[in-house]
Amino acid sequence: MIVNGKHHRTVWLDEENSQKVVKMINQSLLPHLFEIVTYKTYQEVANSIKTMVTRGAGAIGGAGAFGMALGVAQTNSERELRQAAEIMRNTRPTAQNLFYGIDCVLNKVTDLSGEARMTAAFEEAQRVADEDSDNCKKIGEHGSELIRDGMNISTHCNAGWLAFVDWGTALSPIYVAKRQGKKVFVYVDETGPRNQGARLTAWELMNEQIPCKIIDDNATGFLMQRGEIDMVIVGSDRIAANGDVANKIGTYEKAVLAKENGIPFYVAAPTTTVDMNCPTGKDIPIEERNQDEVLYKWGWSDDGRFIRIRTSPENAEALNLAFDVTPAKYVTGIITERGIVKPTELANLF
Amino acid sequence: MIVNGKHHRTVWLDEENSQKVVKMINQSLLPHLFEIVTYKTYQEVANSIKTMVTRGAGAIGGAGAFGMALGVAQTNSERELRQAAEIMRNTRPTAQNLFYGIDCVLNKVTDLSGEARMTAAFEEAQRVADEDSDNCKKIGEHGSELIRDGMNISTHCNAGWLAFVDWGTALSPIYVAKRQGKKVFVYVDETGPRNQGARLTAWELMNEQIPCKIIDDNATGFLMQRGEIDMVIVGSDRIAANGDVANKIGTYEKAVLAKENGIPFYVAAPTTTVDMNCPTGKDIPIEERNQDEVLYKWGWSDDGRFIRIRTSPENAEALNLAFDVTPAKYVTGIITERGIVKPTELANLF
Repeated sequence: MIVNGKHHRTVWLDEENSQKVVKMINQSLLPHLFEIVTYKTYQEVANSIKTMVTRGAGAIGGAGAFGMALGVAQTNSERELRQAAEIMRNTRPTAQNLFYGIDCVLNKVTDLSGEARMTAAFEEAQRVADEDSDNCKKIGEHGSELIRDGMNISTHCNAGWLAFVDWGTALSPIYVAKRQGKKVFVYVDETGPRNQGARLTAWELMNEQIPCKIIDDNATGFLMQRGEIDMVIVGSDRIAANGDVANKIGTYEKAVLAKENGIPFYVAAPTTTVDMNCPTGKDIPIEERNQDEVLYKWGWSDDGRFIRIRTSPENAEALNLAFDVTPAKYVTGIITERGIVKPTELANLF
Repeated sequence: MIVNGKHHRTVWLDEENSQKVVKMINQSLLPHLFEIVTYKTYQEVANSIKTMVTRGAGAIGGAGAFGMALGVAQTNSERELRQAAEIMRNTRPTAQNLFYGIDCVLNKVTDLSGEARMTAAFEEAQRVADEDSDNCKKIGEHGSELIRDGMNISTHCNAGWLAFVDWGTALSPIYVAKRQGKKVFVYVDETGPRNQGARLTAWELMNEQIPCKIIDDNATGFLMQRGEIDMVIVGSDRIAANGDVANKIGTYEKAVLAKENGIPFYVAAPTTTVDMNCPTGKDIPIEERNQDEVLYKWGWSDDGRFIRIRTSPENAEALNLAFDVTPAKYVTGIITERGIVKPTELANLF
């Protein structure tokens, strides 16, 4: 999508001094600074996923694939390559797309060697990235059919183009609807503890000139009760075979509140997010992150520095669950690149 | 309650140079700095309520009464006194206790003059403060009967002693249960946008040596789904005659989630919070506060300053509703100083 008048993807392959490099937007500094970082090794890419320089289901899928391709270029040893894959895999535990991106590249280079092996790895990584972008665009086209002119839409966290290679999932239908001339207003959940809604979703929507307001996560339910929200669209990090949906912590709360208030609740995700080997939501591992993400807030000081402030007592303890599981019964439909299905009808897509 | 080994109330009357002054804990700097401020005029007290130097239903009830008594001391003119009451009343629109505190003092001085008028005003303000503290203690005694040894309790915002003159409402049953030798663990909702849970409730609980963890507001529902929360207790800023409860934004969300997960949801409040002139929750005015409270976060920097950081894009807009209304059907019971009642049986208390 467009940043300062120029088209960008969140993560892409480039060349510096005849060497392949992976570039990505540093999402940890957004919306305060727009910075592009360059990585030459899979270790650097793994670290960028772990520290959330890049984040979001599809973006770390693309980063995983590109990182794995760097790994292929770094070693001819099968043992070392397996180790690299392990390191990449261990960066984040919940998102299905990460494992998909890594495995695509790994599977492609089996039985290859030399130049052909490297070429295949980079081509496959590029294919994974393009596929993600194409899928997201199709999700936008299908999802836009649900959007009527004048709707107020609620979204949680960032499942926009920054969370994917391009277009995004939850926001893609809104971007497509805008291009169709429909008026849409978005209530953006701030999405604590890391505020991806306030930081990234609001930034994306403002860049696309879509009117929006940031609300505290606590306010979504009350706006639903007051009839000010017509539809909820969120993304997903993994969808179990039974239609249970893992997504950013707080998604479950919004889904229950949507149901209670008779508001349609949609999940937008490419079919690569579906894990048919995972029978139910209970089988999805839930990442517990460092408690400092709850005890501190990060942002831009009045004197222009990106700093943290403590918002809790010294020595306080926190529990920081990064994702939750929304049981299928709360999900109106899942918007995929192959069409919109009921969560119980996922198997029909495969 | 105890701070650094010494008993404190949140707001109290004192004397400096033979002049009555109102003192209060500056809650805007907690938990980083413990500071006591002194006010000599009702205008200063009004400003302290507006800017949330003091906040919470009972604390601003006490501050309203003490401020009004200063107003009585400042003027003999009936017209000026009405004006002072108007200024005090216009500081915050939602909390019933504020109006109660102001009106108690106003009604007491009608037909009095001179020394008797001033004495009556300060005595009545003191009575309002003592009544608040006594009511909260009784709420703790009644509420403690609901708490079994080993329970995990969830609370939203701060309805502890800082929100009242002493003891608090939602936290008072926990303080009493602790004194009865029961083990209690508290999940503290951070409570955005102003983080009163992370800042004030965690600080109170840690001072009282009650084990607790701060969680992001988005995590409460998932912990309920996982069976890790046994009961919810929150406070209230105003209760309508039909049992609908106005409280900090997000309370409605937690109430719906508690019901969905079969978890008892209690509201603790003195009967002074009940507004029998307010038929339903729809008649309670909901304060909309400055959008900067959502766009920025306030806290303590690593170099020891209380500062704000921006957590949203430049020029972003926010909507900042400070309270919501929880319909009576989600409330298991209301814990008052006169006992625990169903929300539909409020009238029996009067």
